[in-house]
Amino acid sequence: MSSVHTSPSAQTLSAHLDAGLLSPVRAGTPAEAAVGDGAWLQAMLDAEAALARAQARCGTLPARAAADITAAARADLLDLRELALAARETANPVVGLVKALTAVVAERSPHSAEYVHRGSTSQDVFDTAAMLVARRTLHLINADLRTVAGALAHLAAAHRDTVMAGRTLALHAVPTTFGLKAAGWRALVLDAVERLERAADGLPVALGGAAGTLAGYLQYAGQDADPATVLHELGTAFADETGLRAPVLPWHALRTPVADLAAALAHTTGALGKIAADVLVLARTEIGEVAEPAAAGLAQGLTVHPERMRANLQATGGQLVSERVSAVLAPRIGKTAARELLTRASLLASRTGLPLADVLGQLPQLAGVLSREEAAVLLDPAGYTGLAGPLTDRALATPPP
Amino acid sequence: MSSVHTSPSAQTLSAHLDAGLLSPVRAGTPAEAAVGDGAWLQAMLDAEAALARAQARCGTLPARAAADITAAARADLLDLRELALAARETANPVVGLVKALTAVVAERSPHSAEYVHRGSTSQDVFDTAAMLVARRTLHLINADLRTVAGALAHLAAAHRDTVMAGRTLALHAVPTTFGLKAAGWRALVLDAVERLERAADGLPVALGGAAGTLAGYLQYAGQDADPATVLHELGTAFADETGLRAPVLPWHALRTPVADLAAALAHTTGALGKIAADVLVLARTEIGEVAEPAAAGLAQGLTVHPERMRANLQATGGQLVSERVSAVLAPRIGKTAARELLTRASLLASRTGLPLADVLGQLPQLAGVLSREEAAVLLDPAGYTGLAGPLTDRALATPPP
Amino acid sequence: MSSVHTSPSAQTLSAHLDAGLLSPVRAGTPAEAAVGDGAWLQAMLDAEAALARAQARCGTLPARAAADITAAARADLLDLRELALAARETANPVVGLVKALTAVVAERSPHSAEYVHRGSTSQDVFDTAAMLVARRTLHLINADLRTVAGALAHLAAAHRDTVMAGRTLALHAVPTTFGLKAAGWRALVLDAVERLERAADGLPVALGGAAGTLAGYLQYAGQDADPATVLHELGTAFADETGLRAPVLPWHALRTPVADLAAALAHTTGALGKIAADVLVLARTEIGEVAEPAAAGLAQGLTVHPERMRANLQATGGQLVSERVSAVLAPRIGKTAARELLTRASLLASRTGLPLADVLGQLPQLAGVLSREEAAVLLDPAGYTGLAGPLTDRALATPPP
Amino acid sequence: MSSVHTSPSAQTLSAHLDAGLLSPVRAGTPAEAAVGDGAWLQAMLDAEAALARAQARCGTLPARAAADITAAARADLLDLRELALAARETANPVVGLVKALTAVVAERSPHSAEYVHRGSTSQDVFDTAAMLVARRTLHLINADLRTVAGALAHLAAAHRDTVMAGRTLALHAVPTTFGLKAAGWRALVLDAVERLERAADGLPVALGGAAGTLAGYLQYAGQDADPATVLHELGTAFADETGLRAPVLPWHALRTPVADLAAALAHTTGALGKIAADVLVLARTEIGEVAEPAAAGLAQGLTVHPERMRANLQATGGQLVSERVSAVLAPRIGKTAARELLTRASLLASRTGLPLADVLGQLPQLAGVLSREEAAVLLDPAGYTGLAGPLTDRALATPPP
Repeated sequence: MSSVHTSPSAQTLSAHLDAGLLSPVRAGTPAEAAVGDGAWLQAMLDAEAALARAQARCGTLPARAAADITAAARADLLDLRELALAARETANPVVGLVKALTAVVAERSPHSAEYVHRGSTSQDVFDTAAMLVARRTLHLINADLRTVAGALAHLAAAHRDTVMAGRTLALHAVPTTFGLKAAGWRALVLDAVERLERAADGLPVALGGAAGTLAGYLQYAGQDADPATVLHELGTAFADETGLRAPVLPWHALRTPVADLAAALAHTTGALGKIAADVLVLARTEIGEVAEPAAAGLAQGLTVHPERMRANLQATGGQLVSERVSAVLAPRIGKTAARELLTRASLLASRTGLPLADVLGQLPQLAGVLSREEAAVLLDPAGYTGLAGPLTDRALATPPP
Repeated sequence: MSSVHTSPSAQTLSAHLDAGLLSPVRAGTPAEAAVGDGAWLQAMLDAEAALARAQARCGTLPARAAADITAAARADLLDLRELALAARETANPVVGLVKALTAVVAERSPHSAEYVHRGSTSQDVFDTAAMLVARRTLHLINADLRTVAGALAHLAAAHRDTVMAGRTLALHAVPTTFGLKAAGWRALVLDAVERLERAADGLPVALGGAAGTLAGYLQYAGQDADPATVLHELGTAFADETGLRAPVLPWHALRTPVADLAAALAHTTGALGKIAADVLVLARTEIGEVAEPAAAGLAQGLTVHPERMRANLQATGGQLVSERVSAVLAPRIGKTAARELLTRASLLASRTGLPLADVLGQLPQLAGVLSREEAAVLLDPAGYTGLAGPLTDRALATPPP
Repeated sequence: MSSVHTSPSAQTLSAHLDAGLLSPVRAGTPAEAAVGDGAWLQAMLDAEAALARAQARCGTLPARAAADITAAARADLLDLRELALAARETANPVVGLVKALTAVVAERSPHSAEYVHRGSTSQDVFDTAAMLVARRTLHLINADLRTVAGALAHLAAAHRDTVMAGRTLALHAVPTTFGLKAAGWRALVLDAVERLERAADGLPVALGGAAGTLAGYLQYAGQDADPATVLHELGTAFADETGLRAPVLPWHALRTPVADLAAALAHTTGALGKIAADVLVLARTEIGEVAEPAAAGLAQGLTVHPERMRANLQATGGQLVSERVSAVLAPRIGKTAARELLTRASLLASRTGLPLADVLGQLPQLAGVLSREEAAVLLDPAGYTGLAGPLTDRALATPPP
Repeated sequence: MSSVHTSPSAQTLSAHLDAGLLSPVRAGTPAEAAVGDGAWLQAMLDAEAALARAQARCGTLPARAAADITAAARADLLDLRELALAARETANPVVGLVKALTAVVAERSPHSAEYVHRGSTSQDVFDTAAMLVARRTLHLINADLRTVAGALAHLAAAHRDTVMAGRTLALHAVPTTFGLKAAGWRALVLDAVERLERAADGLPVALGGAAGTLAGYLQYAGQDADPATVLHELGTAFADETGLRAPVLPWHALRTPVADLAAALAHTTGALGKIAADVLVLARTEIGEVAEPAAAGLAQGLTVHPERMRANLQATGGQLVSERVSAVLAPRIGKTAARELLTRASLLASRTGLPLADVLGQLPQLAGVLSREEAAVLLDPAGYTGLAGPLTDRALATPPP
């Protein structure tokens, strides 16, 4: 069955395929197109063409053949679905691709067709294509992440002094600011950018032949070829033609590049997931401190409700700041006594519904030690945000990588 | 943008989609079609139609509307890709689907269109569709697995007495038979069938409404409807129309059906993976005891090479059966002495390359205890297959579930 | 180095070990003891002793030896840490254990010591021990789960009609009851019990010898032993002595029992995790609908705050029940018009802070269609709990497995 | 119950604990001790002491108190198991630890005891301890990995020209050398070292207080303290006292350091697992090209059998090098014709058992194109190792990071 393009019905085709119906976050995005099967097919063709040009630069393949192969290496000239079906027999899509590409080149020049995939092996083409797909997609992702980081920097600066409850395991802990929270989100995103860009910079071409010795390439280079020269020149030229890096060793069985990529992407997913999880909490009906935008980006469109933050700070009647009172009392009556007193006062406040300042003001043990007025001042959440401001400033002063 | 079917170019479409290029084991199989987006779309439409018919049977929706909805619920009348793109806004594909289905029904009867998705919620439709997709695919998988089990039974019976090396952590242990190995593979496959069929039998409809109380369905049933009757009748009718089970409680937040399905599928993957891993070892160039078929099914097309099994049994010069000699010597010279003697003799045989029987025959400690002739008989691998034969018989006598 | 018990310093020992410091949920529980290394050691000794008794019942080992081995098979006679260290050489703990057990038996009777681990292999002992550890621990877990299910049944019955907000993706959806929620938690726990008990019932002894042929056992049974009889009798006796099941085939390489156990335990973790996640949400400072107990069990000690549930139901000014108004309006003004009207009215209510009933009462489109009074009645959350009550009754009427 | 050290029986203790019985690769290693609960306890105490010294350097805590706390911060003064049990109530071990440490300090000086854990929070101590445990263990791991890399470099150099079969999916592909394989293993190990050392260099102290604002620390620094100064000085001093890094932001909720550590450790596991998997294949009874050492390190003790490599190269009668013949024939008779001829000749050689050179020599299509003699030369595996030698040289010339 020919894999050169014919025209099946779109409906028949898509019915058997993954059209994105179950992946609403992916459907229609540039990243979907960049990792789709069409993109993979083009990347494999790009790898074949770059390999031919690299061999031409080393003098082991006619320049005319490299040009013909490059001209023919267009995904729209091949039938993607036929290639997918053909891949079942050989367990990889490259064997069928080479056959189809050879046929297209042969239409222009049977002589040039002799040079398609010369000395190569499926894995060299597949792995190089994987790195090309990765680099192109990382480019899109990083641009997006930088936009997100910019929006978060804006939020952090705007809310540097917007006080809100800090929460630990779902309960109020001590106050913090929304600025510090947004600055933390930005830091996570920039951590991801740094790791993704490091991974992107390291993406290598795959050049090893059937067992990582480049024997096929060397054989075709001819009897007089100097092995060390072939090793250096072919690797460099292939890297240059693809824009990827030339690795020290073939990595068909040493998967560090894939592991690095996976680690950076896992970090990115974690970073974005953490932000989403925080927003999900803050947007709960009862909390209502932020609201998600209807569509568009989350960071760019987030609505912040400082008035709800202020209201929520009162939810525990001052207990949110009891740590501060404890710190003030410790030097006066001892650490242990202070903590026990605060624990009992908080319990009493919870049971009676009285503000903590009132409870403290009436405790006989604190007579002459802490007045109701001092307690009220100490228990103002806005007065106990610690270094949230300077931390936000310091984080925002850290430039993107 | 309308989601009713228009005709995009297949090439443009598939370039952005997953056409199976990177999944050669999937591309073109019946299971691919059964879990493809087209199948999901039809299953969601089937759920909507079944729900309407169930409501009609309960008297809370006109029979004519149920018939109109059923007639319109055809995937080929909708545009799959448009629905996928529309799902981004609502984070699920059902909202857009309901809109598009309503439009199709309205072309026949604006009155019937009023009854599409009545009282329902996206998750009821999505989850019911998921169960329909699961059941249809499990049907295909189980038929395949039963065919595989049959082929393995045939292999086990044919090779009941074909002796081969048993291996532990890559090294020869003691002899076994290929019949017992194939019988074990069959047992794993039948374990999978049993678990998949149990999971398939338990697949439930999803019927809960927005918070699992069926409040919407009850509201539309009218003021006079008896809650207990609605609960029983609507659930039963929906189950009957879909062929699924009626659950005790709505499971939108209690995911036992999904967990059961995942466990059974994970077991199946493990069972088939174990067989594949065994074949990969036995087919290694240096072992060569089996050979994979070029295409078609693995179990049905496996070639077995008993002569290579026989040859490999000689690889350790009899040490494969040293455990037997140890068992014979233990009552004669003591367990510890026997084991130490065998360990030393095996080491000597390895170093010198002599057959173990020769080494044992010359040991002064065994003079009068074990003759070279007895050693040779004991060290025949074919004489030390234990209960492999009866075990194979017993396993094959166990009928498929 | 001897593995028979000596007395190292507890401090030295525990410093190198896992004492539970990082696993507060485990430290000090019965399950910790049941899966600790001490329990594993005893289970391996139990397997050795049961195997000897089973062989004695089959007449292939003296009854006296079985009794001596059984008497010696006590974990407190061996040095656990020494065995752990010795396991490094052989990559499993059984080799050292057999040596140490043999030494203990030999102190009583050198003759009986000859029969320790006769015809056996490490994996038979280790896998049988694993199944014993699993069964003993499952017994504890299931008893706990049944207690939890009982407490949840009590909560569900007590709060059958306690109305609370149903939530979808962090936002209020429609009302539900706490009784239905607790009944769902109970159903999940009982699902776990059913799966764990099914897994516990299926736990098999491991009996295969070095390659799953039982060749060693058969060899020691003597030349006159009938293979089929050995197969049947030894398996049955070993199962009987351990209380485990006799499998059709040795499963050293066919890990269905382990996969089944893992699936049931994964389900259990998921079930308990789901309950914990729900409680974490409901206990948030701003929500406060439940409160965790200071210590003891979560289900048994959970405090429920119906007054907070009632207060939270008012958080959206009636929008929680807008679905009901939509259902009432649909037959009066059409489904689409009703939905659009409600969407706009909800938005207006959100912006102005007015109750939804007031907004609806003033809409010119609803003049003569829906009065403010009818709207107020329809928007009472307590009137829109659907089938929550009957569902709770039905679920509680389902007996534990 | 007191957590200060008492003396339980080692046997009772270890029976409930993980003594390494099921982890033979871990038991008794330096890494086991470095990550054991004793090491965690000491690391948490080290964090408390370092924090006190850092506060003393900033002038917010008396130097004498810091000295007393440092002197008391010894794991052997506390009862590990009691702390583990106490952790159940508070869900973390730090609360109990602070109580116990305070008691030990109070024995020396009740005044100094007031300053234990001043202004701090459990997570600062726990996370800083985690980073100390990580750094200490990474130090051990990296030293081990460098030793392994050295051993592999030695193997690679010694076997630079030892020819062996390259294998793809269990089957012979084309020849390679053991030197290149060992050089690849070394590269993976050095990749791991590089990633682990980068992770180790980045390990930060945790300093944030209850919500990441350092409010407690600032409060105790007194009213006159300048926030920016506290932020800078306290972070720097704490980093200096622990040898860890001072982070830009508190990371209690931004887990990049943990993710980085996990990624580097996952890479290391993968690298070592890949080597182990390769050795497992090469050590198979039928392959026998390497043999594992009885105990000690794998890389250092690996035995290489070049004679078995040579023998295995003959297993396919020259088909291993058919790719080379194909490359020679392509320019003479065309790429497609050459490949088809080779495929047919290989099949014929397999069926008849004849050497491929003989089959080629007799093909009428190759008369005058390729002589039997030329075929025999081309099919010598030693002549087709491509760039294996130069690649090995280049890899070994790459210095360790």
